[in-house]
Amino acid sequence: VILTVTPNPALDLTWRVARLTPGATHRVPTGSARAGGKGLNVARVLHGEGHGVLALAAIGGRAGAEFEAELEASGIPHRLMHVEAPTRRSVAVVDEQRGETSVLNELGSPLAVAEVRDLVDTAARLAREAHAVTVSGSLPPGLGEDDFERLMGDLVATGVPVVVDTSGPALLAAARAGAHALKPNLEELEATTGHSDPVEGANALLALGAALVIVSLGAEGLIVAGPHESPVHARLPRVLHGNATGAGDAAVAAIALELAQAGSDTASLSLAGLARRATAWSASAVLMPLAGELSAETGALADEVAVTPIEETP
Amino acid sequence: VILTVTPNPALDLTWRVARLTPGATHRVPTGSARAGGKGLNVARVLHGEGHGVLALAAIGGRAGAEFEAELEASGIPHRLMHVEAPTRRSVAVVDEQRGETSVLNELGSPLAVAEVRDLVDTAARLAREAHAVTVSGSLPPGLGEDDFERLMGDLVATGVPVVVDTSGPALLAAARAGAHALKPNLEELEATTGHSDPVEGANALLALGAALVIVSLGAEGLIVAGPHESPVHARLPRVLHGNATGAGDAAVAAIALELAQAGSDTASLSLAGLARRATAWSASAVLMPLAGELSAETGALADEVAVTPIEETP
Repeated sequence: VILTVTPNPALDLTWRVARLTPGATHRVPTGSARAGGKGLNVARVLHGEGHGVLALAAIGGRAGAEFEAELEASGIPHRLMHVEAPTRRSVAVVDEQRGETSVLNELGSPLAVAEVRDLVDTAARLAREAHAVTVSGSLPPGLGEDDFERLMGDLVATGVPVVVDTSGPALLAAARAGAHALKPNLEELEATTGHSDPVEGANALLALGAALVIVSLGAEGLIVAGPHESPVHARLPRVLHGNATGAGDAAVAAIALELAQAGSDTASLSLAGLARRATAWSASAVLMPLAGELSAETGALADEVAVTPIEETP
Repeated sequence: VILTVTPNPALDLTWRVARLTPGATHRVPTGSARAGGKGLNVARVLHGEGHGVLALAAIGGRAGAEFEAELEASGIPHRLMHVEAPTRRSVAVVDEQRGETSVLNELGSPLAVAEVRDLVDTAARLAREAHAVTVSGSLPPGLGEDDFERLMGDLVATGVPVVVDTSGPALLAAARAGAHALKPNLEELEATTGHSDPVEGANALLALGAALVIVSLGAEGLIVAGPHESPVHARLPRVLHGNATGAGDAAVAAIALELAQAGSDTASLSLAGLARRATAWSASAVLMPLAGELSAETGALADEVAVTPIEETP
């Protein structure tokens, strides 16, 4: 089982409109409501591919009730903790003609101190029975850097592989705690480490204590850097058009699966194999209209992915 | 008590953003959820002004539950009928810099035949105990022109004053049924009658059987036409800046109150008095950020309104 921790979940509301005209009134089909947040996308991908998963999040209010009902209906195994703060909503308006999405993310309300403690304790307890743990997305109000450091420390102390997809101080805390894999995108990496070169940024996080760093580069694929081998660059040799939302979450799902399957034998883990699977899953997600799903092309895409070692300038 | 019938209610969701940039991701404060639909605005205005009101609507699904909870919390007396179809949502994104609102109205799901019959029967039964009835807004899927004709016939047969704010075939049906007051805006009037002149359009509806026609003209105020006097034009001699959403509903609330207070003594009703109150309430609503509310300036605005008879060209 792979445990997916989503510190800052959201109820994702999506409406599709032929063309969004600011200031105008549009008639639209009924929108969709989905349990969201990056960790939920990771859980959906793994569940859809037939792997055992447990989605952990803290929810509250009416949006939380709708979150829970949707998750229940989707069949994804979950552990939801109920908190006072109403779950934030994330509104997406898809302009179908332009193929662009306007997003409104609610800031959310703070978790109480005791709720944060319960969430951290529950994550650590459930991690002990998992084969890998992912922690994805931003931190909610009320869950500070200190709390995140404790979460990282407790998760890494379980010995179970921990994959973290976040940015800023939380990403640095994950590296210092010795997380097994970090998955920033290039923009987040640069904002966090100051390095615009992905290998330099990845090396900075490795130096802090991370075991592996995967930097996603959008259509350019991703790089994987570890302490023992040259970093590798994996990419699909053609550009896919589709929905990039959730592509990074599919990569996290692939990374967690690779680490879970390697078990304690991390030396057997091939950077190239991990890079190939993460790139293929990420590309496959782009072909699907909704985040959290892979297309039937995943296997064929994995065969197409080109993996090349990166020569580091000394 | 004034009964407000809202055939096609909606859960109104509103988010405010400093500036809406299509295709971008925005961080926004928590949005609001309100029981909506034009008839609910009418009920809110009357309730806020201290008049007895009963809001009737048919709701369903999760959005319907949220609709009911908000109405409960607002203290507005209501009779909600529960139907299978989930209540549609109306999404408003307010761009605070431009002062413009982008709206997405869900089309909604059809009511069942028996549900429509129950709604029409309940409206007629409750109307018998009311001093006036308003019917506002569009028709939901499943409530056809035949059903609306029956609703109009049953309401008018109660002898209670009936005020109707709708457009198209439903507006014509209301006129033919002999509704006591119709309140289209100029655009709706032109689309329905083919007349771009408000007095000509109003006369067409009077000829069909309506007792009074009030045509709202936005910043130009409104005209009131009846069978026995020259029509009048009422307007505020200055332009107000604010939120025009719900201004027409405030006019409907004022019209219903005038008719309720006149009782069976409709001959005593002064077109000028009705025009003054409807214009003042409409202007007062423009000063408020949310539909369904009047400002503290209502009385002063009523004093400012200029009412002039319109000389009809023979």
